[in-house]
Amino acid sequence: MDLPQLRPPERLLCGPGPTNVDPAVLEAMSRPMLGHLDPDLYEILHDVVGMLRRVYRMPDGLVLPLHCTGTAGMEAGIANLLEPGDTVIVGQCGFFGRRIAEIARRHGADVVLVEADWGDCVSNDALMEALDRHPGARMVAVVHAETSTGVEHPLAQLGALLRGRDTLLMADCVTSLAGVPLEVGAWGVDLAYSCTQKCLAAPPGLSPVAVSERALERLRSRRTPVPFSFDLLLLERYWIERPVTYHHTAPILAIYALHEALRSVLTEGLEERWERHAEAAAHLQASIESRGLELLADPDHRLAPLTAVRVPEGMDGKAVQTRMLREHGIEIGGGLGPDAPAIWRIGLMGRNASIETADLVLAALDAALVEEAAPALAG
Amino acid sequence: MDLPQLRPPERLLCGPGPTNVDPAVLEAMSRPMLGHLDPDLYEILHDVVGMLRRVYRMPDGLVLPLHCTGTAGMEAGIANLLEPGDTVIVGQCGFFGRRIAEIARRHGADVVLVEADWGDCVSNDALMEALDRHPGARMVAVVHAETSTGVEHPLAQLGALLRGRDTLLMADCVTSLAGVPLEVGAWGVDLAYSCTQKCLAAPPGLSPVAVSERALERLRSRRTPVPFSFDLLLLERYWIERPVTYHHTAPILAIYALHEALRSVLTEGLEERWERHAEAAAHLQASIESRGLELLADPDHRLAPLTAVRVPEGMDGKAVQTRMLREHGIEIGGGLGPDAPAIWRIGLMGRNASIETADLVLAALDAALVEEAAPALAG
Repeated sequence: MDLPQLRPPERLLCGPGPTNVDPAVLEAMSRPMLGHLDPDLYEILHDVVGMLRRVYRMPDGLVLPLHCTGTAGMEAGIANLLEPGDTVIVGQCGFFGRRIAEIARRHGADVVLVEADWGDCVSNDALMEALDRHPGARMVAVVHAETSTGVEHPLAQLGALLRGRDTLLMADCVTSLAGVPLEVGAWGVDLAYSCTQKCLAAPPGLSPVAVSERALERLRSRRTPVPFSFDLLLLERYWIERPVTYHHTAPILAIYALHEALRSVLTEGLEERWERHAEAAAHLQASIESRGLELLADPDHRLAPLTAVRVPEGMDGKAVQTRMLREHGIEIGGGLGPDAPAIWRIGLMGRNASIETADLVLAALDAALVEEAAPALAG
Repeated sequence: MDLPQLRPPERLLCGPGPTNVDPAVLEAMSRPMLGHLDPDLYEILHDVVGMLRRVYRMPDGLVLPLHCTGTAGMEAGIANLLEPGDTVIVGQCGFFGRRIAEIARRHGADVVLVEADWGDCVSNDALMEALDRHPGARMVAVVHAETSTGVEHPLAQLGALLRGRDTLLMADCVTSLAGVPLEVGAWGVDLAYSCTQKCLAAPPGLSPVAVSERALERLRSRRTPVPFSFDLLLLERYWIERPVTYHHTAPILAIYALHEALRSVLTEGLEERWERHAEAAAHLQASIESRGLELLADPDHRLAPLTAVRVPEGMDGKAVQTRMLREHGIEIGGGLGPDAPAIWRIGLMGRNASIETADLVLAALDAALVEEAAPALAG
């Protein structure tokens, strides 16, 4: 019987995520596994929620990790906050804005798109004008950190513009949480979702969410049911209001990993971590431009954890990625989806947000560029 | 700053799941993490699917692990196979049959319940009579292994009765996969879902599913959309039809764990593993009855991996569980949900399916029973 063994090679993960996991986080996953109804687990869940509140800067409402991928976290936000026939205004300037729109349509919402080109940022003024045209819109949804283009949305300003309105604000914080300034409570975000495998530097598998009090109130008066797995009110009872109302079996080891990752974030200091991501990105982005390569993102809205670089005309971008992977063990990403421009996506997230890691990526990129250019030059 | 450390105590997990994880499985989770779009990951995914096919005994159709909990796997099955207004016949004799019905209603289906008492098995004849009364029913759904009562449904016979009909058959195999005989292909099951934390003895977090060719054909002609995260046709493209159509970021380390757990199942031999679960359960169940305690499940339909024991009249069942946990480090379960009779639920799953583990549980139960009975005797 031929039973293959698992022998994954070493990688420096500098694509759009996942990023490399801290050894301490891996170690946490090997600790004794408790049952999901164990009274001793409650303290761990309580601590995870407390730390997550600090990382999201969300003092009230509901904060917890959903036991699903970041994409399912997006869908959970949409499924909870929207009902069939609701209007949602979606800012779309890349793959993930488009996905919000697609999922909202699947859940029966009427989607009003406010678009910008890949690399540009959706304008807050344009979003507010759309809201003026659709004053009954239930929600405005934007991507705080557009992982497909390396663009950061001015979310604080959007929150300020929406203050006093009935319209909810949902933000995709998949590549921003613990990597760039984010203050869900102060900014008036009603639902933020993220994932564990980017700036938190835990393995993929959970989707931390933060939900405002007023969003929870809206949930309590819904007319139509939410898919069971996504039902935030049931999940609140399961996670927070112990003794347990059984909902599902929590992925215990993933929670251990998140616990350790959150400790690491708070031990470093959240603002120090934002600063470290900013410094690494500034170094990477300046070094790339100094090589004559072009960045995709509008300079006024560049994201730190993810940098998109235009592939030079005539260069085979995928071949460069393959060389970096095979010859240097370094993963970087390419464009995402059929509409993406020809780009590389370099992520410096979590422990990889350092000038040293940036330099490793740059050296491998330099070597691959020379090798890929050589046949063209020879020709 | 007070940052709590993770210090979970050791447990022998003999409740309804999760069960203890093999050290080799934990070790697999510490191997180098690949990105979810890494070409070298494809081989791993391919191997996981191949091994899972053998464990499900499903030669065709779609087999893959969903990146969600077992409960979400149940919801994915329902959301894919049913559309609003469809009729589904649900066999309900415990918590999980009831949950199928609840989730089906949330997704707009008309539910026809065929019930039996907790501890009894839903009759296949009654299911077929319900189908005769509702000949247009799209699906019959049963729980192969009712984790809340320790009852095994005669699934092979139900599949045979349904042969030649248009009605689909869905089976909850959460506590049966790799623990009791299950032949999804030969029995004509159209959608089976399970989880990783029971007889597969991997950590919780994934939901392996097996879907028949005819169920996939039905999916291709749906009139209404499926929630994005659950969309089996998109997931098929993401998992199977590489190069990748991006769907979400796969939980890589959970996949490594499942890979190793499946290797362990197939190295032991699937039938040998079924036999080991049967022997451990026979020993446990006989030993419990020899103590004068009563088993909940109908003797003709007793499940091996999970045994439900009636709490004797006047005994505080929860206090016994707490003693076993605190004094012996052994977790067993109680009744699940408000309708459950007073029971203990003892799981012997995965590596814990052994006579040695059964004897550890029995010794701890004996001690706890004496200690709990003592005050009553003294009074």
